[in-house]
Amino acid sequence: MRTGGVLNILGKLLILLSLFLLTPIPFSIYFGDGMSRIFIFSAFLGFLVGGSLIIAFLPDKELGYRDGFAVVVLSWLGLAFLGALPYYFSGHMNSIVDCYFESMSGFTTTGSTILAQVEILPKSLLFWRAVTHWLGGMGIIVLSLAVLPLLGVGGMQLFQAEMPGPTKDRLAPRMQDTARILWGVYVLFTLVETFLLMLGGLDLYDALCHAFATLATGGFSTHSASVGYFNSTYVEVVVILFMFIAGTNFSLHYQSVLNKRPSAYWRNEEFRYYSKLCCFAVGVIVIANLFHHTCDSFGETLRTAFFQVVSIITTTGFGTADFDQWPPVCKVLLVSLMFVGGCAGSTGGGIKVFRIILFLKYSRLQLRHLVHTRAVGTIKIDNVKVPNEVKIGILGFFSLYIAVLVTATLIVTATGVDIVTGTTSVIATLNNIGPGLHLVGPAQNFGDLPGLAKCVLIFCMLAGRLELYTVAVLMTPDFWKMARKPVFRSYFYPVKKIESKIHA
Amino acid sequence: MRTGGVLNILGKLLILLSLFLLTPIPFSIYFGDGMSRIFIFSAFLGFLVGGSLIIAFLPDKELGYRDGFAVVVLSWLGLAFLGALPYYFSGHMNSIVDCYFESMSGFTTTGSTILAQVEILPKSLLFWRAVTHWLGGMGIIVLSLAVLPLLGVGGMQLFQAEMPGPTKDRLAPRMQDTARILWGVYVLFTLVETFLLMLGGLDLYDALCHAFATLATGGFSTHSASVGYFNSTYVEVVVILFMFIAGTNFSLHYQSVLNKRPSAYWRNEEFRYYSKLCCFAVGVIVIANLFHHTCDSFGETLRTAFFQVVSIITTTGFGTADFDQWPPVCKVLLVSLMFVGGCAGSTGGGIKVFRIILFLKYSRLQLRHLVHTRAVGTIKIDNVKVPNEVKIGILGFFSLYIAVLVTATLIVTATGVDIVTGTTSVIATLNNIGPGLHLVGPAQNFGDLPGLAKCVLIFCMLAGRLELYTVAVLMTPDFWKMARKPVFRSYFYPVKKIESKIHA
Repeated sequence: MRTGGVLNILGKLLILLSLFLLTPIPFSIYFGDGMSRIFIFSAFLGFLVGGSLIIAFLPDKELGYRDGFAVVVLSWLGLAFLGALPYYFSGHMNSIVDCYFESMSGFTTTGSTILAQVEILPKSLLFWRAVTHWLGGMGIIVLSLAVLPLLGVGGMQLFQAEMPGPTKDRLAPRMQDTARILWGVYVLFTLVETFLLMLGGLDLYDALCHAFATLATGGFSTHSASVGYFNSTYVEVVVILFMFIAGTNFSLHYQSVLNKRPSAYWRNEEFRYYSKLCCFAVGVIVIANLFHHTCDSFGETLRTAFFQVVSIITTTGFGTADFDQWPPVCKVLLVSLMFVGGCAGSTGGGIKVFRIILFLKYSRLQLRHLVHTRAVGTIKIDNVKVPNEVKIGILGFFSLYIAVLVTATLIVTATGVDIVTGTTSVIATLNNIGPGLHLVGPAQNFGDLPGLAKCVLIFCMLAGRLELYTVAVLMTPDFWKMARKPVFRSYFYPVKKIESKIHA
Repeated sequence: MRTGGVLNILGKLLILLSLFLLTPIPFSIYFGDGMSRIFIFSAFLGFLVGGSLIIAFLPDKELGYRDGFAVVVLSWLGLAFLGALPYYFSGHMNSIVDCYFESMSGFTTTGSTILAQVEILPKSLLFWRAVTHWLGGMGIIVLSLAVLPLLGVGGMQLFQAEMPGPTKDRLAPRMQDTARILWGVYVLFTLVETFLLMLGGLDLYDALCHAFATLATGGFSTHSASVGYFNSTYVEVVVILFMFIAGTNFSLHYQSVLNKRPSAYWRNEEFRYYSKLCCFAVGVIVIANLFHHTCDSFGETLRTAFFQVVSIITTTGFGTADFDQWPPVCKVLLVSLMFVGGCAGSTGGGIKVFRIILFLKYSRLQLRHLVHTRAVGTIKIDNVKVPNEVKIGILGFFSLYIAVLVTATLIVTATGVDIVTGTTSVIATLNNIGPGLHLVGPAQNFGDLPGLAKCVLIFCMLAGRLELYTVAVLMTPDFWKMARKPVFRSYFYPVKKIESKIHA
């Protein structure tokens, strides 16, 4: 690993985030909550540290495949720390662990909160929570690839490490163009949703915050009652629609909507499966709730079921109802959907529909093998044969996933948390959803968990957002054997400069 | 599928089981519980139906690979039904579903019971419960291959379908000899344990019942307090030892003990992993229980922890303590161990240690791939490269396993069972363990579950015992497309006989 080059990029990303740290200031001034100073100070610290890193370490043109993992993990850790500063300085949270939890939950679009009442936070700080979602949803590194030529590396490595997914859609020959298209679609949808929400009576502030949280499949709201606060069918329908959109592959949006080929949606096997799964889950929940008389009317049941299913499957985590009060079968179904997640290439977390389809096709193939012993089977998705590496990669993914799930649950319950809370808190963070069941249910929060449990859950959020491999690779000894000493800039060590010039 | 030939074998197996139905009669006479009539009548029905099937259908020498699946599943369903008759006629159970549940739980060595107090059953009926364990543990079809040449098929197909496992150890060139060796080792260990338990003060009846349940990794006891009833450290240690033995590959016992090469144990990677995993789990549970002051002394904690870990990992399900009262981390650990199961080729259920090792090696390989992009990786167990089919088969197994787990849990909770009970009852039956948590915890029973839930759990037990594929294959439409009409014996349809002679 080329430590110097990696730290140089981290510096640049810190400066980019510092710019975003200034965005809540207009709201702070408008609402007069006195947070402007804090945002400016946090941004200043970001500029300071980022600038120092850029000055201290040379950029490295030869950053490789491996360095991509280090850049991404280190950046996410660092950016989440910078993003936690406004919470810390505001004095509304007890400890730096809580602030880091909230910040990481934002960037990873998890949406788990340690706050019992979000309304106690200044409004501009709640806006910052929404901004962290939005930046983390499509990926701040992907954004930097789209807007800044300054990273100095090809970008493919970083792009792959931050948007790992089982499939790679290269929309344009140059990585920068692909990143631009994805962020373009993302910004466009955000603006459309903001506009539609404002039509529903929300002010710009609420509309923007909820659009950020929806498109990023985050789940932070500006109200403790989440989207249920607005008590408006129109708003709920808009949010359902855009959560569903956010859980779809963004390349598919580009091909379908922007290229005016709407049939592309239905021709995509993953999208078909994703839609059918939503409808099936809604059906089961409606029947179970009607049977148990949990809701008042059929219309309300249907709307609530749709909202909750789409919110969970896309790993958004918005709530309009406390599903912890629903019949057991609904809870099991929702917990199962937590694992599914959105489509590959969406902003949703979880295992991803693509992997689930492949998984199911595998078992069907295996059964066919047993019936017709000599049948040669291939697995196809969208009539394209799935390459062998993808299949092996998916087996590895599942095994890592289960290993992380079990280990994290063991540690969290070892801190004394009960079994349902412990298990579902890990599931909810590893899949970047937000709420779990029992003590971390939709009407509860993560604030009362022990510090160690919070740290484990922070790790789960990051591992989930980066789809395990990127984080796991950094935990192998092999990776660190290859790390090199950082190359400082010449004015610290003149000899090094001469060396590097000779090698160049 | 050759339906006639399959039904002919079923007939032979029913007769074999009818012979075993006579074994509790000596105990019935000794204890004077008046059950002799019932056992004789049940056996008579078995002879009658079995005899009719043999007379009605011709044996088929050409039974193939596919027919093996049908023979095994049909036989297990039929034998469990015959085994349920004594419960039903005794009048101690409410419904035929309860009887079938108890019988299937016996044959599949699950050990889940619908009885709150087992002592209310006549002693000879409790002996029959233990016999069903013992027959199901090594497999009644494997037994029939060992002792009867009458099945008329090569046996390899049946052997594979009843002992599916990821590995095949052919101990002798002829399948009949392999089956004999395995059953021989099994009988020997049973006799040794019975003797050791009698040394500990148990009478022949209790010793035999517990030896049957231990070696089969079943879990039925003749007392509601399970092995805890004897309140003897010696008895517990003997049971721990033999549960551990039963969870080990029986081929390994043959190679090690009977061939006097004890080092073979430690040279086996699966055995090493299995032993280490037990020790790790015991360590965690001892620390957690000492920390929470759940047990009185260190010695008691250690003994209870060892007993419970080995009981769960081998999927026996014997209890000496109500682990539902333990700290959450212990419960999570025990539930995780429920999935592991014993070694391949043991009588234990679950996923099997072999598959878990392969699973973990896969993720390690995948991580190595990501660090050294061009590294060519192979997975070895015991320094032998794992063939590709085994790897693909394991991915298929996991995907089926999760599909069954989720579907079954959804149906069970849909009947109104709470989430912890529903989830752990499926886990406990699919892995052939016995007790779950909450309403089906070690101190509770399955009696109060709704009928539909019991039926789903019966399916889970069978699917788990036959390691999914055998049952799943029968549920594919492809399989049934190949079914042929049965060939009846000539005196029913003389024309058929002539036909079959022509074809022969």
